[in-house]
Amino acid sequence: MRQDEAQGVGITFADFVAGTTWTDVAEQGHEAKRSILNFFATALGSAHDPAINAALRVLSPFSGAATSAIIGRPERLDAMGAAFVNAISANLLDFDDTHLETIIHPAAPVAATVLALAQARGFSGRDVLTAFILGVEVECRVGNAVSPGHYARGWHITSTCGVFGSAAACAKLLGLPAGQISNAIGIAASQSAGIVENLPSAAKNVSVGNAARNGLFAALLAAEGYSASPRAIEGPLGWARAMGDEPDLARLTEGLGKTWEIAKNTYKPYPAGIVFHAVIDACFALRKKLGARIDAIASVTVQGSTLLLARGDRPVRNERDARVSIHHCAACALLLGAAGVTEFEEATVFRPDLVSFRQKVRAELDGSLPDGASRVAIQLASGEMLEEIVMAAKGSLADPLSDRAIEAKLRDCARLGKSDWDIDRIIDRVWRIDTLDDVSSLMRA
Amino acid sequence: MRQDEAQGVGITFADFVAGTTWTDVAEQGHEAKRSILNFFATALGSAHDPAINAALRVLSPFSGAATSAIIGRPERLDAMGAAFVNAISANLLDFDDTHLETIIHPAAPVAATVLALAQARGFSGRDVLTAFILGVEVECRVGNAVSPGHYARGWHITSTCGVFGSAAACAKLLGLPAGQISNAIGIAASQSAGIVENLPSAAKNVSVGNAARNGLFAALLAAEGYSASPRAIEGPLGWARAMGDEPDLARLTEGLGKTWEIAKNTYKPYPAGIVFHAVIDACFALRKKLGARIDAIASVTVQGSTLLLARGDRPVRNERDARVSIHHCAACALLLGAAGVTEFEEATVFRPDLVSFRQKVRAELDGSLPDGASRVAIQLASGEMLEEIVMAAKGSLADPLSDRAIEAKLRDCARLGKSDWDIDRIIDRVWRIDTLDDVSSLMRA
Repeated sequence: MRQDEAQGVGITFADFVAGTTWTDVAEQGHEAKRSILNFFATALGSAHDPAINAALRVLSPFSGAATSAIIGRPERLDAMGAAFVNAISANLLDFDDTHLETIIHPAAPVAATVLALAQARGFSGRDVLTAFILGVEVECRVGNAVSPGHYARGWHITSTCGVFGSAAACAKLLGLPAGQISNAIGIAASQSAGIVENLPSAAKNVSVGNAARNGLFAALLAAEGYSASPRAIEGPLGWARAMGDEPDLARLTEGLGKTWEIAKNTYKPYPAGIVFHAVIDACFALRKKLGARIDAIASVTVQGSTLLLARGDRPVRNERDARVSIHHCAACALLLGAAGVTEFEEATVFRPDLVSFRQKVRAELDGSLPDGASRVAIQLASGEMLEEIVMAAKGSLADPLSDRAIEAKLRDCARLGKSDWDIDRIIDRVWRIDTLDDVSSLMRA
Repeated sequence: MRQDEAQGVGITFADFVAGTTWTDVAEQGHEAKRSILNFFATALGSAHDPAINAALRVLSPFSGAATSAIIGRPERLDAMGAAFVNAISANLLDFDDTHLETIIHPAAPVAATVLALAQARGFSGRDVLTAFILGVEVECRVGNAVSPGHYARGWHITSTCGVFGSAAACAKLLGLPAGQISNAIGIAASQSAGIVENLPSAAKNVSVGNAARNGLFAALLAAEGYSASPRAIEGPLGWARAMGDEPDLARLTEGLGKTWEIAKNTYKPYPAGIVFHAVIDACFALRKKLGARIDAIASVTVQGSTLLLARGDRPVRNERDARVSIHHCAACALLLGAAGVTEFEEATVFRPDLVSFRQKVRAELDGSLPDGASRVAIQLASGEMLEEIVMAAKGSLADPLSDRAIEAKLRDCARLGKSDWDIDRIIDRVWRIDTLDDVSSLMRA
């Protein structure tokens, strides 16, 4: 489909969303289930985070009939409140899925909302899956159209684009006609917000949660007749240009219904910044080679692109720093042979052996390495040198996480998040979500 | 106060908001009451607008305990819901107050929220007035720092800056300490949204309502420990730069506590775009001169600045067009001798005599006239010419609406909005709001 400039992207998206059925997206179903499984993993991992406790204290007095589960907990809220909270918990650990072209984390704003709405209204799993795939499609295409300038300029792209995905998905789930879907997408444009300056603080959670909640709000308002410009995204005074970018119209709509953004989704094996994953993999390989000689490491040199160094060559003052530290990633992979949620928690980050080992790690630019690759060299006390290079990290599109690895990640996160939800049932129900008449059986302890 | 660049504007604002008492702002109290009276006028005028009915249908199932009034109606919602709806109704007619330097309509997002919150928690009128003045101060200073580029780029400035005002006002009303006030303002930055492309549609209402609702949400989250960058507004990846402007730090904080933005607030006598007010005034003056000869008008020439022509020289297809039409403003002022809410309603806009009279009106550039001024020339069938020039329209800072005129506007709006609220009581209570122990007596039928 080529964007008809006279018509407005909102209409093109709306026609596509309204006209797409489960049959059209069934081939994307398995990847969508993997995304949703990963979504449950990260949401369960943060179920009892202080940010979730605080959000529940704020929202409980402002909830209507409590129809929708807070994942991993006994509480419920209305669907808008639950969408807000579950999107936050899915994103809190920086362990969620990643659409690599935009660095959008697609699932949090979309899955949180369609599941909360479906539980409130009794929609089927197939409807949820269809809506989720379409929501991710709109979300990532909007992101494609303004990348990479958008994120670089200070917009938290998961928040700013997530609201479009949530709106499109909810409009589909509610069965709105195309005209109202276009309005929902346009209303999303008037709610798109979230800045990078706030990423190191809980304010980040607010924009992620709002992306989820406000997408549903947009769809509900559209269903009651609220209108919006069909050119809200690309118009002269519309979203993209106000946000600072000349929107790439082709990336918005070309190939719509033929290529699928969900197929480009990836899942992190480690709760660290994605550029550090190759460092971790290289260190795991070196640890295997070293065996007992691990104690004899004199120094570690990590080489990578400008991006790796810009993001990761920094002192570690807290857990957030640790997740974007070359030194900490190398230290826990080499010394502990692990880089899971535990290894980025405060108790581990400040273990004296790790603090001391981080001093042995040096970061060095190698401009010939692409983003996402890394070379790690180790010198032993004896003077012996070992080296490992990783071009495509585990979890990347070239080396995707297996279904079993995502299940294991979910179990690991659930244990750490101290949730008492029945994990076997969640895993079972997500894999066969397209056969569930009602997703409620998935959304409870 | 000079902005200490090391400290962050969030902290400077927070110290100011936390440290300012009623005594410090009492001199601004009368202007604040005028703003709130004008706010009630516009909110009452739209109390039964279809956009309000639809918003209530959407929000009612998502409301917690219904503590707060919907102005002009019997329904209540929780404070966040009521803030959303009342901000919309205050802004719907484009008849609200105007801070001329930024074209922010300051009251809608701030007054709607502090009144809803105060009613829910039983705060005094003096607390409300103090919080309102401080909220408007923060809102308009943020707007000053990015004007005029911000609005011109496509940001709906009342929405994008309103959320800062609402957050600061609610944080003050809740008695938060300075650290939490800074966090509330920073959280507001992650929720700031709203685009000009959507202004001709109901999506505009959503961003105005969200500005109100989300400011309260920011303050409630901050009170529960949510944090934000103290440089969320001016930081390198913060709000102003992401939005596209190099923020003017001096305009953010210089003279804080010495000069007051509320003192620059103005109130529209006519529900038309503010640049058309001089056209209307000139036509009123001509109508007086003409007397019975009004039927003998052969042609009307309206002269003004580029802005006037860019905004107002257009065909009239609906009421929204009429409110920004040189032709319609001149027609109703000359032919009907009125330019109130009635004159911009559909029934009047398409009256055959007005449709036909609009054809006689021609717009012409006079680059020597400043924005906000207009010269109107009339030619009679006899060939006789009459001319009137207005440099400062009624309602501008140079010719402000009197207290009695704002009261009359409120009565007029309430009648048109078909509200059964006791108007005399509202007028009485607003003028002595600083003596009310609890604003609840103001917030009911």
